[in-house]
Amino acid sequence: MFESINILNLVRSAALGIASSLIVAASAQAQTDPLPSWNDTAPKAAIVAFVEKVTKQGSPDFVPEPERIAVFDNDGTLWVEHPMYTQLAFALDRVKALAPDHPEWKDTQPYKAVLEGDMETLAASGEKGLVELIMTTHAGMTTEDFKKVVTDWITTARDPRFKRPYTELVYQPMLELLAYLRANGFKTFIVSGGGVEFMRPWVDQVYGVPPEQVVGSSIKTEFRMRDDTPTLYRLPQVNFIDDKAGKPVGINEQIGLRPIAAFGNSDGDFEMLQWTTMAGPTARFGMLIHHTDAEREYAYDRNTSFGRLDKALDAASNAGWVVVDMKADWKQIFPSK
Amino acid sequence: MFESINILNLVRSAALGIASSLIVAASAQAQTDPLPSWNDTAPKAAIVAFVEKVTKQGSPDFVPEPERIAVFDNDGTLWVEHPMYTQLAFALDRVKALAPDHPEWKDTQPYKAVLEGDMETLAASGEKGLVELIMTTHAGMTTEDFKKVVTDWITTARDPRFKRPYTELVYQPMLELLAYLRANGFKTFIVSGGGVEFMRPWVDQVYGVPPEQVVGSSIKTEFRMRDDTPTLYRLPQVNFIDDKAGKPVGINEQIGLRPIAAFGNSDGDFEMLQWTTMAGPTARFGMLIHHTDAEREYAYDRNTSFGRLDKALDAASNAGWVVVDMKADWKQIFPSK
Repeated sequence: MFESINILNLVRSAALGIASSLIVAASAQAQTDPLPSWNDTAPKAAIVAFVEKVTKQGSPDFVPEPERIAVFDNDGTLWVEHPMYTQLAFALDRVKALAPDHPEWKDTQPYKAVLEGDMETLAASGEKGLVELIMTTHAGMTTEDFKKVVTDWITTARDPRFKRPYTELVYQPMLELLAYLRANGFKTFIVSGGGVEFMRPWVDQVYGVPPEQVVGSSIKTEFRMRDDTPTLYRLPQVNFIDDKAGKPVGINEQIGLRPIAAFGNSDGDFEMLQWTTMAGPTARFGMLIHHTDAEREYAYDRNTSFGRLDKALDAASNAGWVVVDMKADWKQIFPSK
Repeated sequence: MFESINILNLVRSAALGIASSLIVAASAQAQTDPLPSWNDTAPKAAIVAFVEKVTKQGSPDFVPEPERIAVFDNDGTLWVEHPMYTQLAFALDRVKALAPDHPEWKDTQPYKAVLEGDMETLAASGEKGLVELIMTTHAGMTTEDFKKVVTDWITTARDPRFKRPYTELVYQPMLELLAYLRANGFKTFIVSGGGVEFMRPWVDQVYGVPPEQVVGSSIKTEFRMRDDTPTLYRLPQVNFIDDKAGKPVGINEQIGLRPIAAFGNSDGDFEMLQWTTMAGPTARFGMLIHHTDAEREYAYDRNTSFGRLDKALDAASNAGWVVVDMKADWKQIFPSK
């Protein structure tokens, strides 16, 4: 009897325990905002409404998990791209690091301009100069060696304005969005004009996106046996430019499925947004990050030499793309230190 | 009192219920063989030993889940490749289907040979003839249209010898192996010389490999707006050949991680096996399927015009690659009808 009463109490407590945990869980769910760095403005509501309708079993807009593919541009969409692409900052630092072995660079453009910090002359060297810089600093070594160079640099380099590692100059609202989508069965991909092997060493740690979910520009590589070790050697030849009309091509080559959501910030993302959202009757989502916050980050759109947002901004309204006003819609820009 | 006794019984039954389910589960685990179509010979033991050591937390060979990448060739490794690659059978059928719109083909090689079933003349047209056939049948349409053509064909075509759909001429032991690896936290990829867009429409259903985990050969595509619809148009130009030394290149471009296990059957997989297994101190696994069973499937190795297994077979012993003797090591070749 004594025993059975104890057990009775046990069962009762257990039942009460379960009930109260259920209550706690429900209330926690109601209170936990998956997007706390987004203000309660239209973009946040649009994101949540889209995710709810494509994940709700039985809804006419329901999308099965394997088809919940979301693609994100990187520069200007997930992290800062001004005053210069981070990958260009890397290339300039590489030129300085390699300069002692190349005394001829002191008198050769575009290297001379880099070494003298003469950005105007560097800009005047145009795309030809830029491609030469990229090839000099990104090719002529194995993929393993390049990975090490990138990893060493990204760990130590600092943004001159914010005095923080570049990997901390990522947008907190976008980190929350990536996590929110993944929690809802989405597979998140990066589709960037940046070099795929410049991104892969760090994006998993920073964005939670594994290497195989990164699409980017690339140079050609060649398989070479070096003694008994197989290597891939990086050749100074462009393989693929993952920008503008190249983005749908890259998405199709590497992912092989049409995304249902795309996030960008510039005309370089225009065709990716078209490819993603103008695809028939099922629910789609397109978003443009509009850089409107000179104080907390930068303000630019139509009149910038890169990251230009012009025709995509004009098209947004008709296409139904959500435009994020960074200043008004984001409570916080970067992760807290 | 009555109530409390009932509850007591309930608790007792529940406790017994849990205990007995645990016993059932443990005994089911001991009895369930994840590779039932493999005979108990050396290859099966090698697979199980490898999987156990890389998945055992604390083991010196432990590999974290995100790095458990396994790559599989397709033709001759996952499905039958003789007497001709299935994709070639598809191309020949396409020529016949398109012939009414091309009366000139009756007098033009290599089409004439195809239409007359003259395989000798077709073979004599060499790589040039083959590439022309592929471009005629695989390009000149959107990716959506090509997907539909492939899907229609693969659903209806039958292998002439086995009288079964090609998607049923997959190797049952390899299906089990794919599932076994995935159950142990591996991500399984196909890395095939075949066309990536020829495989993607059906590999998920057949192998459980989603489109984004398929690496293959490709032709160039171009983004085109057709009225208000974004399309990718397939151009008659080779983009990438995912064979031999191209396989490590394709793996690096699309996956960006070095696999820890590779499965092939021919010299076309030689460099992929090198790239995977000759990579330093951590545990690696390489396997070659040796076609030795003329009765149940086919027997060929050094003296075949395609799917040739020659230098990779010579290298296997030194490299520590496991060679599967289909006749001796596989209990069953194809899935039961």
